[in-house]
Amino acid sequence: MNTSTPLLDKVNSPAALRSLAESELRQLADELRTETISAVSQTGGHLGAGLGVIELTVALHYIFDTPSDRLIWDVGHQCYPHKILTERRDRIRTLRQGAGLSGFTKRSESVYDPFGTAHSSTSISAGLGMAVARDLGDKDNSVIAVIGDGAMSAGMAFEALNNAGSMNSRLIVILNDNDMSIAPPVGAMSAYLSRLLSSKSYMSLRSLGKHIAERFPKQLEKAAERAEEFARGFVTGGTLFEEMGFYYVGPIDGHNLEHLLPVLKNVRDAEGAGPVLIHVVTQKGKGYAPAEESADKYHGVSKFDIVTGTQVKAKPNAPSYTKVFGQTLTKLADEDDKIVAVTAAMPDGTGVNIFQEKHPDRSFDVGIAEQHAVTFCAGLATEGYKPFAAIYSTFLQRGYDQVVHDVAIQKLPVRFAIDRAGYVGADGQTHCGAFDIAYLASLPDFIVMAASDEAELVHMVATAASIDDRPSAFRYPRGEGVGVDMPERPEVLEIGKGRVVREGKTVAILSLGARLQESLQAADLLQAKGYSTTVADARFAKPIDADLVRKLARGHDVLITIEEGSIGGFATQVLDLLVREDLTQQVKVRPMFMPDAFLDQDKPEVQYEQAGLTAPHIVATAVAALGGDSEVETPVRA
Amino acid sequence: MNTSTPLLDKVNSPAALRSLAESELRQLADELRTETISAVSQTGGHLGAGLGVIELTVALHYIFDTPSDRLIWDVGHQCYPHKILTERRDRIRTLRQGAGLSGFTKRSESVYDPFGTAHSSTSISAGLGMAVARDLGDKDNSVIAVIGDGAMSAGMAFEALNNAGSMNSRLIVILNDNDMSIAPPVGAMSAYLSRLLSSKSYMSLRSLGKHIAERFPKQLEKAAERAEEFARGFVTGGTLFEEMGFYYVGPIDGHNLEHLLPVLKNVRDAEGAGPVLIHVVTQKGKGYAPAEESADKYHGVSKFDIVTGTQVKAKPNAPSYTKVFGQTLTKLADEDDKIVAVTAAMPDGTGVNIFQEKHPDRSFDVGIAEQHAVTFCAGLATEGYKPFAAIYSTFLQRGYDQVVHDVAIQKLPVRFAIDRAGYVGADGQTHCGAFDIAYLASLPDFIVMAASDEAELVHMVATAASIDDRPSAFRYPRGEGVGVDMPERPEVLEIGKGRVVREGKTVAILSLGARLQESLQAADLLQAKGYSTTVADARFAKPIDADLVRKLARGHDVLITIEEGSIGGFATQVLDLLVREDLTQQVKVRPMFMPDAFLDQDKPEVQYEQAGLTAPHIVATAVAALGGDSEVETPVRA
Repeated sequence: MNTSTPLLDKVNSPAALRSLAESELRQLADELRTETISAVSQTGGHLGAGLGVIELTVALHYIFDTPSDRLIWDVGHQCYPHKILTERRDRIRTLRQGAGLSGFTKRSESVYDPFGTAHSSTSISAGLGMAVARDLGDKDNSVIAVIGDGAMSAGMAFEALNNAGSMNSRLIVILNDNDMSIAPPVGAMSAYLSRLLSSKSYMSLRSLGKHIAERFPKQLEKAAERAEEFARGFVTGGTLFEEMGFYYVGPIDGHNLEHLLPVLKNVRDAEGAGPVLIHVVTQKGKGYAPAEESADKYHGVSKFDIVTGTQVKAKPNAPSYTKVFGQTLTKLADEDDKIVAVTAAMPDGTGVNIFQEKHPDRSFDVGIAEQHAVTFCAGLATEGYKPFAAIYSTFLQRGYDQVVHDVAIQKLPVRFAIDRAGYVGADGQTHCGAFDIAYLASLPDFIVMAASDEAELVHMVATAASIDDRPSAFRYPRGEGVGVDMPERPEVLEIGKGRVVREGKTVAILSLGARLQESLQAADLLQAKGYSTTVADARFAKPIDADLVRKLARGHDVLITIEEGSIGGFATQVLDLLVREDLTQQVKVRPMFMPDAFLDQDKPEVQYEQAGLTAPHIVATAVAALGGDSEVETPVRA
Repeated sequence: MNTSTPLLDKVNSPAALRSLAESELRQLADELRTETISAVSQTGGHLGAGLGVIELTVALHYIFDTPSDRLIWDVGHQCYPHKILTERRDRIRTLRQGAGLSGFTKRSESVYDPFGTAHSSTSISAGLGMAVARDLGDKDNSVIAVIGDGAMSAGMAFEALNNAGSMNSRLIVILNDNDMSIAPPVGAMSAYLSRLLSSKSYMSLRSLGKHIAERFPKQLEKAAERAEEFARGFVTGGTLFEEMGFYYVGPIDGHNLEHLLPVLKNVRDAEGAGPVLIHVVTQKGKGYAPAEESADKYHGVSKFDIVTGTQVKAKPNAPSYTKVFGQTLTKLADEDDKIVAVTAAMPDGTGVNIFQEKHPDRSFDVGIAEQHAVTFCAGLATEGYKPFAAIYSTFLQRGYDQVVHDVAIQKLPVRFAIDRAGYVGADGQTHCGAFDIAYLASLPDFIVMAASDEAELVHMVATAASIDDRPSAFRYPRGEGVGVDMPERPEVLEIGKGRVVREGKTVAILSLGARLQESLQAADLLQAKGYSTTVADARFAKPIDADLVRKLARGHDVLITIEEGSIGGFATQVLDLLVREDLTQQVKVRPMFMPDAFLDQDKPEVQYEQAGLTAPHIVATAVAALGGDSEVETPVRA
């Protein structure tokens, strides 16, 4: 593969790009594709999405005056080519690494990123805010939001369309239709787009005239001068988007610069107000055979060999928590036909794909729609089913009101399987599962568990299945388990009971979740220093094991709680008990949780170090509380 | 007005209703309307919405076999006629009162309420869950969700339509189109529905044929037998809902039983699968002149005189917090053209209507769309504007992920004006503003304030306006202020500083928000018992006033924190500081906050009593901590 990029080497900014002739852009796009593949082969990350928008990226920066014109990439996982073109090529091989470039757009990283993205479907709302601000300030910059067809299934995108479609503000929405989000698309909107595409051809040169004259009168005059170019640019028709108040243009071949450029130019120069939607059709993974052939697998990739496409994956030492969840739930469902599984467009990421293979009729992918997912589960629960809503901690934030209003208040036994709880490494701050303990344990009647290893997860899946009179949740981290022996059969745990893993006398470490291994290491280190140490696995953040907490408080000089979550979670439940019973007068209590800061992406072990949640931090905290010298610096707390 | 209801008196259940002849239903509907007006004139509550669905309520219970068939009323504020017909007429004059009927549907209240509602736009998701459960269980009951056109603007409804429209499950959605939610409708969907209505007539007897034949083949056979009735029932056309995968029927005059009954019957009996949407047009307040003439004012009413329609309203002793917010923001905006106000379909409820009158170009009603509202504000903030998102505590839950992902992580200075923080009286558990302190104070860099009276609110609006480097929020309760003197000018408060209101030596009460008055009363009571008492107004839940907390902890025997919110909020911030500095070894700490339970609707003073958040509770807590006898029972903590 030829990896030389002579033209791209000369283009070190969008301004430089705009000085090229249109005839040079094809070559530039090809080189940009080459560079993107080369970079991701070294860093890993999102590949298919970026390759699908190579030409669109070039065309947007060529036609629009970025950064004065605001360009927002929805989700942002397709932004690597954009980063290469916007003065970040020199750091592109630091993607998703500590102190490197974010895998998403990020305001603090570049003026070319006017809005940080990562969670889906935010771009139209943000763009509308910018467009309204422009109008209020009598400015004339363009605002462009690029959003995928998958992201269109989220309610948030609809809310924004509904609002923008009734306003008189010029906002340009580019629907990047690649018939693919992370998983194959689901839902009526996706089916609609497919019908729309099959009923229209790319280049109907006729369907202009009247329609455009109504909306863009000035544009029509110009059009007379250069009719052919214009005709190529505008293909319109009565669509759902027009019903929603948008001027619809499309569909357009998103890999053909000769089509993209005139359309974008026309929309940019059009007089008149109101929102425009340009429907662009692209292929995820375009131009790289291994990605084209397997678009979903190349959504997120490890480092890979460019020639063969073979990804370099470390052999796992233990099964992933995700897989353990999927397998356990599948097994339980073999014997319990009331168990159903629900995912919001993440069947593979959540392990619901494993369940789906065995129980396709009881497996539901509802699209990028966490709000609906939660209440859909609530409806199932009212009829006696046992729904498991398998949603990442960070994405469940989207369904928080539904958790409160439809599940908790009605005390419905919906089970929340909360993956990616805690730090998530390369995905960074936007995907960190920090707040679920706080936002769930504050809800009346909720049962909240956290698995300390993959065997515990097995038991917690079974425990959740058995809880049929109230909501429950169990959280577990990203990645591999710790390699413990797996139980032969899932056991139902006693609600609100923890377990003592190791007995001691001076220091007590009460761990919730997967920091248990660090707690045990800390106990070894403390023991070596002469401090006899108890370690307990709390299992439950709510209800807490009050007897265990009392015992630990009464029998030790120092009580440390540790959890991989924000303030307001497990520690809060423990402290509340302790102060009400004046137990803090007998023991020094040191709650350890995530610092009050959003940590940038890095290796998980670095994030734990920054967060102050490692074994040495536990040791230092205990020793300092006991009056000794701390050997480890306390992490910065904002 | 004739208030006799001879026919209704005989109908004590849906089964009894179904034994009537169709010809008797008109009279029954009229009597049901009379009874609804009579009841609400005595209780206050939601009137216009219920009057709009009188005929629909009668028709649904007549045609469908409730409760076996599941009938879900979206939002639920239109459910009073439904409650009268479903064995709750004897208690209908207890609506919204302590130990009385809820103002919304509620599972624990009746088997005829298969799903509790109150927050908008949940019914399609819940109904789809029930429909899928029915299919999995091989049952054949119908599932009907009745949803207003206003509720259709919420993303959640779209997510549910998108999912249902691609599934093969029979779900009946009734779009109750009264061109009115609480405020006049906004958004493209509303405009679309208006166009749809203006382009169609109610009774096009032709447009059946092919369309129905495709979808309901068996139905067509029956149709041949009774063509006219059938023709009356089905009017269809290519609509946005059909693009979304629904079979669309309508529009139908929702006050005409001769139209409603055959349509509902046909849909009920139709063979085939897939979702159906029946578009019913109604008038809010129908049949009661004062309500018809002023639909928005009769959305929620006080007790009123039936003949004149005059509402009985107690003269306020002090301006409402809502009004103080609206007026203060308006005044600030007179001098600062960067201030903008955003509401999610609640201009009157939030006081944004006051702002709107003076600054219409900087006021935005985005529809029932809290997710979009928050990120729209984030977009405005990136461009240097000062957006105030005025959203009730309970509804901001809908935008929680956007608060985290789009505002907090990017540290954008969006200002959240959080009305209805704390207990809300008659609106009950679904509208209680319990969790905002916990879910906002756990976010890095957020500034969270709570106003202890209406003068403090004035200062907090100004303070929020001045905070331009990070997000901020200020919360305040429902209802009237306490009657303090109002400041001449808003002052910018020092961030993270509280104020000592009263100095003492033994007990310290650190109050966040509007429990300050109770705290002062408690101090009087304690003083009378010989306990010298300090009272402080914390002002900030985050960052807390660490110096003040230390001073209170060191200088008193007992430190009480009190707030009108859930666990995980202000108390958590205080306790965290205290234990880290071992200050709890010197002082007994008693955090007082909402109990771990969802309280039913009642008078606010009763709710505070149940919650254990009154002056006597503070006194009892302090005395018990000091070793004395408590005179007040501690509230039940679940």
